[in-house]
Amino acid sequence: MHKVNLAQKFSLFSEHYKPKIAGEINDAYVKLVKLKGEFLWHHHDQEDELFWVLKGQLRMKFREKGVEREEMIGPGEFIIVPHGVEHLPSADEETHVVLLEPKTTLNTGNVESERTVAELERI
Amino acid sequence: MHKVNLAQKFSLFSEHYKPKIAGEINDAYVKLVKLKGEFLWHHHDQEDELFWVLKGQLRMKFREKGVEREEMIGPGEFIIVPHGVEHLPSADEETHVVLLEPKTTLNTGNVESERTVAELERI
Repeated sequence: MHKVNLAQKFSLFSEHYKPKIAGEINDAYVKLVKLKGEFLWHHHDQEDELFWVLKGQLRMKFREKGVEREEMIGPGEFIIVPHGVEHLPSADEETHVVLLEPKTTLNTGNVESERTVAELERI
Repeated sequence: MHKVNLAQKFSLFSEHYKPKIAGEINDAYVKLVKLKGEFLWHHHDQEDELFWVLKGQLRMKFREKGVEREEMIGPGEFIIVPHGVEHLPSADEETHVVLLEPKTTLNTGNVESERTVAELERI
């Protein structure tokens, strides 16, 4: 039951798109992730996901009924992606994001790929 | 499905200890609250609570088996208070905090008082 300093935790790793667990609240994890480049299109059948940007710019693309749009999320901003919605996170420059999502959430959602991280490190 | 700018949302209200709902993820709410002065000792039987400080300093007191201690949480830091743990939030100066907790969580936990806010405003 001690505080967590986010900048200090982010200094402990450098890989991109490998979320780390920084906290546990009820049935959810607080995860830290560094993004750079494009991830992959996916959705989560059951789980809503919150993305809170601390540094950089998160470019979040959405695809609904064949129509794409994107939203840029910067420091001090968050976005919630409801379950079922196809999305593609990307970042031109390194971007630091805090994720909040159920413990059951897989980073690549419905898509299993070499980018899937099933076992997350705790930090 | 649009981003939320936290500073903009915090500019919309000024009361202390009246959390506002700024987002909904699965069974949890993202709430914004301004703190100043001392709240009251309470605990939550079932729900863990996350306190993330954006501005100011949150002084969180804990009481376990009659022993008190406190933790100061500043900008860029969060703390998770597990269910069952007696705590007393306070702030010497105005402090802005993002809360993450289940929708069922009442601000005063096990203690009903004039400070209980049962119906939260959405912002």
